[in-house]
Amino acid sequence: MTLHAAYDPDNIFAKMLRGEVPAVKVFEDDVALAFMDIFPQVEGHTLVIPKDVEARNLLDMPADKLGPYMQRVQTVAQAVEKALQPDGVRVMQFNGAPAGQTVYHLHFHILPMVDGSETRRHASGAPADMDELKALATKISAHL
Amino acid sequence: MTLHAAYDPDNIFAKMLRGEVPAVKVFEDDVALAFMDIFPQVEGHTLVIPKDVEARNLLDMPADKLGPYMQRVQTVAQAVEKALQPDGVRVMQFNGAPAGQTVYHLHFHILPMVDGSETRRHASGAPADMDELKALATKISAHL
Repeated sequence: MTLHAAYDPDNIFAKMLRGEVPAVKVFEDDVALAFMDIFPQVEGHTLVIPKDVEARNLLDMPADKLGPYMQRVQTVAQAVEKALQPDGVRVMQFNGAPAGQTVYHLHFHILPMVDGSETRRHASGAPADMDELKALATKISAHL
Repeated sequence: MTLHAAYDPDNIFAKMLRGEVPAVKVFEDDVALAFMDIFPQVEGHTLVIPKDVEARNLLDMPADKLGPYMQRVQTVAQAVEKALQPDGVRVMQFNGAPAGQTVYHLHFHILPMVDGSETRRHASGAPADMDELKALATKISAHL
């Protein structure tokens, strides 16, 4: 019943929000934090998470906090598109392990898609090169 | 440049909103319409679209209309989960054909996921049985 378990404050995104583990940040304000996925499915794979809320997934996100959070998801998606000029942008959010969720703090994936390319299976390989991630983050945040 | 083309008011979802083509409706209010995908990737595949807005995708959705729309996406996702009790729920939104978009009116996909099951390639086969879709819509809307 992963869909309805209690929020675990020691998940890795909660630790990022508390500054206990590093993140390659793209955007941050009082509502949300955006950072590069360390196991990118595609180049430019960015995650956006809400702050100050204990939500495992979209199903248990307080409705009154959803709008401001989704505006940040949109803003970051727009910046990813402007910065990397992909052919398309895929936005995904997984609720529960059978849906593909691996970290239990609500997050939206933003995947810039290049025509004809394939996504890599999430977290299947080695983490991305940190300098490459930082360069991508700088490029994206320049459009925010 | 499908990402930045003009909105086409003759797309099939716009026609559904105008009542020109039928939809197996799950939910409708002044903000959004939810209905069963006629080419479901999984059983219970539901779509949620915003009303009264000419947005091809998430990137060009007016920011002030995003919050109320996303609350409907959340509400419908919660109802799908309650009605069908899947192991997980996948939420996806595609911007541009290379991301997987086939209809150019903003829509979020809600996919109830059963452990170990695979999704079908979207729109690759025959449309679903109408009576089955109607039964699913009735089941989901009972939780709305």
